[in-house]
Amino acid sequence: MTNILLTLSYDGTDFCGWQKQKDVRSVQGELEKALQKMLNSHVKVVGSGRTDSGVHAAGQAATFLSPHDSIPEENYIRALNSILPSDIRTHNARKVPLAFSARFNATSRVYRYFIQTKVAPLASENRYRLFIPRELNTSVLNEMCGCLSGERDFSAFCASGDQSLSKKRFIYGASFSRDEENPSLLVFQVEANAFLWKMVRSLVGTLIYLEGQGKGKEDFERIIANCDRGKAGPTAPAKGLFLWEIKFSGIRVHP
Amino acid sequence: MTNILLTLSYDGTDFCGWQKQKDVRSVQGELEKALQKMLNSHVKVVGSGRTDSGVHAAGQAATFLSPHDSIPEENYIRALNSILPSDIRTHNARKVPLAFSARFNATSRVYRYFIQTKVAPLASENRYRLFIPRELNTSVLNEMCGCLSGERDFSAFCASGDQSLSKKRFIYGASFSRDEENPSLLVFQVEANAFLWKMVRSLVGTLIYLEGQGKGKEDFERIIANCDRGKAGPTAPAKGLFLWEIKFSGIRVHP
Repeated sequence: MTNILLTLSYDGTDFCGWQKQKDVRSVQGELEKALQKMLNSHVKVVGSGRTDSGVHAAGQAATFLSPHDSIPEENYIRALNSILPSDIRTHNARKVPLAFSARFNATSRVYRYFIQTKVAPLASENRYRLFIPRELNTSVLNEMCGCLSGERDFSAFCASGDQSLSKKRFIYGASFSRDEENPSLLVFQVEANAFLWKMVRSLVGTLIYLEGQGKGKEDFERIIANCDRGKAGPTAPAKGLFLWEIKFSGIRVHP
Repeated sequence: MTNILLTLSYDGTDFCGWQKQKDVRSVQGELEKALQKMLNSHVKVVGSGRTDSGVHAAGQAATFLSPHDSIPEENYIRALNSILPSDIRTHNARKVPLAFSARFNATSRVYRYFIQTKVAPLASENRYRLFIPRELNTSVLNEMCGCLSGERDFSAFCASGDQSLSKKRFIYGASFSRDEENPSLLVFQVEANAFLWKMVRSLVGTLIYLEGQGKGKEDFERIIANCDRGKAGPTAPAKGLFLWEIKFSGIRVHP
């Protein structure tokens, strides 16, 4: 048995999400089918983050136990990319200790949310960006982001149905930045130990909503402190969101 | 009657190409359907370039005669983007003289072909790039591109079935460059007065093939001079190709 850690990207548009479900197309399901073909044996794949339907990934990580110890790492990349559908790509494969888990050894997850302002995104970018027809004030947005750092209860940004016992998460950093080449493209990046269900999309939806209403830091702080999802803003659409990178102690997983 | 010049982008993946055809999904067809909805009247749209099935556009241009003279330019952009399917976007609309034609007044067309080398493209880029698993030598490629400038007979790069009387086209420039942010991404850009059928893809396919065979400028020059499609290389896949920009005397059309 060899434990393999994969780095994957996917276009979430045509998936029900990461997690395998009956009768629908999932990333985990397609990956397990591809590995079954490659290894002639069923393996269970564990992902670092369970992305929702429509959410993309640039640097998802996943581990599985391969029954074949002698297959070189590069062969997993090549074989999987030839078997997998074109909306999932494998960028790296490495052998890791047997006890290593993509889920439990991940120390943080980085998400990015892409927002195209003012002018419509190109059709080739439209699958991966939220379009806001007006200009956004990044200073105001970043002032609000200041409230997010550290360990807080994020119940106000958690979809009903989230199974987590604690709604506390530790955010290492959150900010908006403008793309250098394309100033009408804004990127929201947030890194945390873990996230609640639809937390990033609720944060983005609320931040953009408040900015549009001329609100600021105090209003956002009140919403966080209230711990009431009903007091926060809308959930931003899935298509702008990418699981960007997974960090492990000592290992970074990104293409 | 007002003549409107549109700038459009599209993701060519799910289209039979620009040109309207029976029972298949075309960009021209979707655009005419959207304009019919918006204007309550049938209009015929003329494009600057008839892209093939699977070929994308970042800056296609098209003209049509609107029966409504009082509609402001911005309204065409907004209305079309709300009616059109998400894989076609409108970026600009401007009133032009009645005699102006997107097809006949275009002085040059710029195409770009995107090639991801060595490492697999992200799934979100995979629809828009050709993947070549090895490194490409851009010096050798650009030496070959030197043969392309000026007016030449491009019969060697013309798909059978092309209806043009003359196979001569004037190329203003052609070169490969490396993306600054992602050095494994190469961009081939070519600008000409007009192109033969599948000309850009035949050029790219032949250039990459020759580079891989250790061939160079003399071999490429011989292929051009032979005017024989059978002596050239393969046709590169449609997915890496974008109609990038249309130039009119005095007007540039690009988002």
